[in-house]
Amino acid sequence: MLTATPDLAGLTRASDNKILLFVMDGVGGLPHPSTGLTELEAAQIPTLDRLATEGSLALCEVAMPGLTCGSGPGHLALFGYDPLEHDVQRGVLEALGVNFDLRPGDLCARGNYCTVAESGDVADRRAGPLSTERNREVSALLVDQVSLPGHEFHVLPGKEHRFALVLRGPGLSGPLAETDPQRTGEPPHPIRALAPQAEGAAAVLTSFLDQARAVLAGEPDANFLLLRGLGNSPDLPAFPERYGVRALAVATYPMYRGITRLLGFDVPETGPGLDEQVQTVRENLADHDFVYFHVKETDSAGHAGDYDRKVRAHETADAALRELAPLFHTVVVSGDHCTPTGLLEHSWHPVPSLIHGPTVMPDLATAYSERACMQGGLGRPRTKDLLPLALAHALRLSKFGA
Amino acid sequence: MLTATPDLAGLTRASDNKILLFVMDGVGGLPHPSTGLTELEAAQIPTLDRLATEGSLALCEVAMPGLTCGSGPGHLALFGYDPLEHDVQRGVLEALGVNFDLRPGDLCARGNYCTVAESGDVADRRAGPLSTERNREVSALLVDQVSLPGHEFHVLPGKEHRFALVLRGPGLSGPLAETDPQRTGEPPHPIRALAPQAEGAAAVLTSFLDQARAVLAGEPDANFLLLRGLGNSPDLPAFPERYGVRALAVATYPMYRGITRLLGFDVPETGPGLDEQVQTVRENLADHDFVYFHVKETDSAGHAGDYDRKVRAHETADAALRELAPLFHTVVVSGDHCTPTGLLEHSWHPVPSLIHGPTVMPDLATAYSERACMQGGLGRPRTKDLLPLALAHALRLSKFGA
Repeated sequence: MLTATPDLAGLTRASDNKILLFVMDGVGGLPHPSTGLTELEAAQIPTLDRLATEGSLALCEVAMPGLTCGSGPGHLALFGYDPLEHDVQRGVLEALGVNFDLRPGDLCARGNYCTVAESGDVADRRAGPLSTERNREVSALLVDQVSLPGHEFHVLPGKEHRFALVLRGPGLSGPLAETDPQRTGEPPHPIRALAPQAEGAAAVLTSFLDQARAVLAGEPDANFLLLRGLGNSPDLPAFPERYGVRALAVATYPMYRGITRLLGFDVPETGPGLDEQVQTVRENLADHDFVYFHVKETDSAGHAGDYDRKVRAHETADAALRELAPLFHTVVVSGDHCTPTGLLEHSWHPVPSLIHGPTVMPDLATAYSERACMQGGLGRPRTKDLLPLALAHALRLSKFGA
Repeated sequence: MLTATPDLAGLTRASDNKILLFVMDGVGGLPHPSTGLTELEAAQIPTLDRLATEGSLALCEVAMPGLTCGSGPGHLALFGYDPLEHDVQRGVLEALGVNFDLRPGDLCARGNYCTVAESGDVADRRAGPLSTERNREVSALLVDQVSLPGHEFHVLPGKEHRFALVLRGPGLSGPLAETDPQRTGEPPHPIRALAPQAEGAAAVLTSFLDQARAVLAGEPDANFLLLRGLGNSPDLPAFPERYGVRALAVATYPMYRGITRLLGFDVPETGPGLDEQVQTVRENLADHDFVYFHVKETDSAGHAGDYDRKVRAHETADAALRELAPLFHTVVVSGDHCTPTGLLEHSWHPVPSLIHGPTVMPDLATAYSERACMQGGLGRPRTKDLLPLALAHALRLSKFGA
């Protein structure tokens, strides 16, 4: 079917041409009320403008028009996986975010320690909030005293009252409903299977919760826990096999490191700054064909609502790209979603994107910006189309049909 | 799956931001042979041009390239339902068009009274044509004398020889073939199920037709009837629940009032002119978040092949929009299909459309026209994408994935 991402594995071919996927997290914004310029339009980004002039631009729909994507779906799309087909629940991202070595099929949940009153109702959904130190103590109690014969489980403490729960073993399929009532004065919901195949997982989790309640009963603060965003770690086709590349991920934030490790990328230590990330690329490039390079600061500035900071983040990213671009045959620049500083959160706007390389048909654009990309030569692809386009431009795909 | 409109019901969130969907029926045309200007390009439409300048334009495919849509599919698309997934047969629209209170599952057909010769062949497909008065008499005979135990039926007289038939009750699924042979000198086709699940409905309709033949046998003109466009009233997810809005429809023509009532809109009396329609919006706006406003004259002028009249229709619509736009956070302008005056009927051309509001990324356009929309910042979405885009721009959708 035309709309499904076709399996390119049978079409990949060997090549020395290396590909850079340069991801500016949250790139793309809205005009400043005073100047009418977006952050990209205000920034001095000579490298991006040169690549735009020599290359071809696109505005990419991350998933579908109007849909604001989280970083998980956005990155799946950047890696060529349809984010509407591969649902990644928050629990999975939480486990990836604490650097846990997740495997396909692991059942994950995002947890809160909470305080339950004698009536059985939730009195405090964050147990205080709990201190990070107490979180570690309580988590250790669960690990020591809960027992799930036939299944492995991991309680991964996060900050304050937050943790991730990972269960591993047979018969742990979702979907499962959340237990968090989302308000105080109500009891936690029981674990509930949302489909017949989830009954086994529901039984195992119910046993976990029953034991946890007993283990934590004497604690003054965190005497129970709530689970949200339950889901299985996706069994995605591994990126290197799917695309015929040795893949390197250079990112500092745990979630991006986790999702790439899950997909089979090599993920060396790097950072904390873009200079160190560039150095990591240099050190590892000989052994890799495809490099994913993640810039976090553009998104952080967007969430902070700091226009000038986002402008500077683009300029810093541009300097890193000046170093990196000459090392690659084909360069793709995009983002996992927009984070306009005026909105302080992710948005649904399509993402300014470009492809540069010797096989690109250049368009008429001479700058990299939202409005330049509206007229871009690559039109309005879905973000998931960028990966096949990158492989094609690097001459890494053979012909379909005779 | 990408082609399906995903269920946004889980993503809607509360907001005070109100949305206007301003539909100019049949908007979009072709250049005048003398001037080279389309009706939109010739019209003085300062409000639409201002919204285009501040907003972002699109050319919308109503269903798919090359497909000319009727008003039914066109409106389903405008309301965010895929018109290729939700088949609405003409019989359903006919029943909606006479203000019948249709319910999901009702089996509908468009009927013609006809004259059958003694040979059994159709002698006149329109029975004269029958007068509207005789139509009422004949329809009353059927209502009085036909009996379908276990099922309810309604014969809804229209103009001249036309009527709508509605059957309600268990086991009335289509699809069913038409009985109209489309020419004289042939007998009417028997009712025929086009799939096994339609056998029950075919039996009930066959009983209806057998009785109708007996009841009408003595009539000099309308001694039988032909059925076309048979289909079930679609069981569509209700618009207010699907999108989390209190929805108001302001339209004068029965069909548009009927389809919105079927979808769960509030549909107050209004009209006959655009001024009265604007007043109806003002009176009902406090209790609604989403307003569908229908302009019929643009389409009527197109069907009449009257270029100057269509120009004036746009100008009148523009004046109404000048009053309405300031009342809303987000304004969407589009049509259910094009009706170029040069063609005198609906066409397959994509529909000039715009979105205006504080969260829109403006494009470079400074006018609302077919050619301006070709360069529009929103590209070439499907019409069904406009609704999710409108919700997104009004900040009424939360994030997909973490």
